[in-house]
Amino acid sequence: MNIFPKETYIERRNQLKKKMGSGLLLFLGNEESSVNFKDNWYPFRQDSTFLYFFGLNMPGLAAMIDIDRDVEIIFGDNLTIEESIWQGSHPALLDLASEIGVEKTISKSEISKFLSLLDNQRIHFLPPYRPENSQKLAEWLEKSPVEIQSQASVDFIKAVVSLRSVKSEEEIQELTKAVNISVSMHKKLMLEAKPGMKEHELLGLVTGQVLSLGGSLSFPPIITIDGQILHNHNYSNTLVEGKMLLGDFGAESGMHYAGDITRTIPVGSRFTDSQREVYQIVLHAYQTAVDALKPGIRFKEVHLLACRKLAEGLKDLGLMKGDLDEAVNQGAHALFFQCGLGHMMGMDVHDMEDLGEEYVGYTEDLKKSTQFGLKSLRLGRELEKGFVLTIEPGIYFIPKLIDLWQAKKLHREYIDYEKLARYRDFGGIRVEDAYVITETGSMLLGDPLEIEIKAVEGIRKGKTSF
Amino acid sequence: MNIFPKETYIERRNQLKKKMGSGLLLFLGNEESSVNFKDNWYPFRQDSTFLYFFGLNMPGLAAMIDIDRDVEIIFGDNLTIEESIWQGSHPALLDLASEIGVEKTISKSEISKFLSLLDNQRIHFLPPYRPENSQKLAEWLEKSPVEIQSQASVDFIKAVVSLRSVKSEEEIQELTKAVNISVSMHKKLMLEAKPGMKEHELLGLVTGQVLSLGGSLSFPPIITIDGQILHNHNYSNTLVEGKMLLGDFGAESGMHYAGDITRTIPVGSRFTDSQREVYQIVLHAYQTAVDALKPGIRFKEVHLLACRKLAEGLKDLGLMKGDLDEAVNQGAHALFFQCGLGHMMGMDVHDMEDLGEEYVGYTEDLKKSTQFGLKSLRLGRELEKGFVLTIEPGIYFIPKLIDLWQAKKLHREYIDYEKLARYRDFGGIRVEDAYVITETGSMLLGDPLEIEIKAVEGIRKGKTSF
Repeated sequence: MNIFPKETYIERRNQLKKKMGSGLLLFLGNEESSVNFKDNWYPFRQDSTFLYFFGLNMPGLAAMIDIDRDVEIIFGDNLTIEESIWQGSHPALLDLASEIGVEKTISKSEISKFLSLLDNQRIHFLPPYRPENSQKLAEWLEKSPVEIQSQASVDFIKAVVSLRSVKSEEEIQELTKAVNISVSMHKKLMLEAKPGMKEHELLGLVTGQVLSLGGSLSFPPIITIDGQILHNHNYSNTLVEGKMLLGDFGAESGMHYAGDITRTIPVGSRFTDSQREVYQIVLHAYQTAVDALKPGIRFKEVHLLACRKLAEGLKDLGLMKGDLDEAVNQGAHALFFQCGLGHMMGMDVHDMEDLGEEYVGYTEDLKKSTQFGLKSLRLGRELEKGFVLTIEPGIYFIPKLIDLWQAKKLHREYIDYEKLARYRDFGGIRVEDAYVITETGSMLLGDPLEIEIKAVEGIRKGKTSF
Repeated sequence: MNIFPKETYIERRNQLKKKMGSGLLLFLGNEESSVNFKDNWYPFRQDSTFLYFFGLNMPGLAAMIDIDRDVEIIFGDNLTIEESIWQGSHPALLDLASEIGVEKTISKSEISKFLSLLDNQRIHFLPPYRPENSQKLAEWLEKSPVEIQSQASVDFIKAVVSLRSVKSEEEIQELTKAVNISVSMHKKLMLEAKPGMKEHELLGLVTGQVLSLGGSLSFPPIITIDGQILHNHNYSNTLVEGKMLLGDFGAESGMHYAGDITRTIPVGSRFTDSQREVYQIVLHAYQTAVDALKPGIRFKEVHLLACRKLAEGLKDLGLMKGDLDEAVNQGAHALFFQCGLGHMMGMDVHDMEDLGEEYVGYTEDLKKSTQFGLKSLRLGRELEKGFVLTIEPGIYFIPKLIDLWQAKKLHREYIDYEKLARYRDFGGIRVEDAYVITETGSMLLGDPLEIEIKAVEGIRKGKTSF
């Protein structure tokens, strides 16, 4: 099995116990997920927090840490003889548990009884994001599904977030692997995309690449000539010369760490002049953000620096105008950049999103803004050494949003709607890489992937070889 | 959207109404399924019965047919403005519904109230296989999840099964598309598999192929040098000369019909003599089964004919002995062929498995056997024109099962355990294609794929081109 050394898991659990002080911690692994009938399954994905503390990558497990009695238990079952005839031999659960430093296993059928014996003790659990895990918790803890949703333990969440937010050396190595596979997927796409192809041909290309390398997808790829549609999982368009192709996808490594990279390339071999201008603005914002990364700075501040840079470029183009400090302060730039500059990345591509953005990306002292644009920023808090995050500025011309703002006469002092009309069908541009926060600044994760206009066009012309 | 003409859906619903006579029929579409946090989704797959009667391929829908009042309703919602900014424009739900002949839509938030007004009327629903759909039904119908599982409507199930079992011309066309993509995946694998490769490289190859062609996988591929492990989704082995590679995978077409093909090929360019002998036995059984296919014959009988053919070959090899009629009758051959000869195929690769094998594959007059081997036969009933099913005999040497039977001294009069010891590490061989039952017999679905030993070795030696 693909696991870290036993000591890694023991140390992680010890740190968690120390942070919590006392109490009972219940961890739910994931089950198989059905596609169109019960036994036709999506590829199994273990819960990330379960993987982080227990490393066992198979369905049907749960675990408990009883801090006060210093007991750790894996709940699960060995294969029956019948199952092992069909599935081949597997190591016994106790042997697997022992590989991650847990010496006690109990049949899953006992878990209800086991928990009912822990009378009057609070059982800490994390918020479930899969319906079957909500159901299990409701049954085991004799609560309603609604109570389960509202009674997840904030202390437990905060302790897990504080540990998982800071990536260890061995985690950085795994993230680097995931990023490097992601880079190879993007290079393949950059080399092979041609006018006349369907988007789904490229979906096949990059998915085939990641599976061939023993990884999987960290999220559903965006591969589109409509880069302005931010949540787009349609792959039916034909690549047309003169348009741009936005690819936002990444690999999950064998140890289930994520990569996440975006590039926007010309469908032909060169950007048009207008595409080049907008791309350069996005690139300036990207570089400004990267230069600002360091421990202690709030990521919200980095986001706003990037927004300001975008606004400057858009003013040069004539699309924005007026006092740019005030424009960004009021959120006028969000007509072009509707989303956040980046997010934490780890075992989840949006790391720990299941635990709640208010705990992962914000703090007691810094709550998320409700302003359009800022409200989509998943990460606002002060950065620390060991955080891994993405930097992904973009400029998107969304006809529906332009019409809406113009009709409402929003931010007319900062936006030139008349000039903007010419960009209505421009599309969208985004670039994205992942960085790790170091002692003094930041470091690009993994192999660099062409991002400057010349380098991208170089690949598209077939002038580079790798 | 990828749909049949409106008349197809209207006709299907009319037939269903006729079969049911009266009552309220509730259909649940599927929701997005979360991977590792709520908004990270597996590829969406609509429920097949929902697709069959309503064709709309998007999450968050339900539908109702009120036969007595002659009303059909789609429950669902249009995108909000906020959603359409992020997801691009989509047609209104009423326009989509109209494309499949339904003229009434109601917001999903109204469904609970709507159903509660239908006092004292039985609401027929199908057995849910996804936990969130169980939860929805429990909430809407004010029942417990346990009641939901036990109160699915048998009349409704039977009516749906009787319609979906017989494939129309347009369905055969879609199934043919799915099979042809599946054939192209297998050809790619047959051409490119080489000693030294990892199984996951081939997983990438065939998955990339199906996605490139605009399809998806109809089930998780089996690509393994351990063909004797019947439920195997591990891809970590290295291909070794002298071993065989078993590939069991297929495509789902754009209209969500399934393909399912198996081939077993030599890792090198030629089978060994021993592999050749066993392969030929499997092939004889395959041909025997195919020759027997016709309307009116019970598939259980076809299965037993194939078993008898396998037993004959195994007797020639010296692995079985004695009276073969009695051996097959007692299930002794199931040491080598533990599973069923085939299954229905349609929109689901195991078609309608969510509705229950007792209704899909068996009848009031023919219940499923409990004998080892036969109890894994999903389809036993009389075949009818328009049925589509797979023929997939195999011979598998499962060390654990051999040990178990030998220790229990099972079927010693029919099995030569001493000779069998030499085959312990042989592995497994299966071939599989899909057939449609015609007026007088059957027809292979889609393009033929090399199956004879010479033809397979021809491809492996690179002597054919396509």
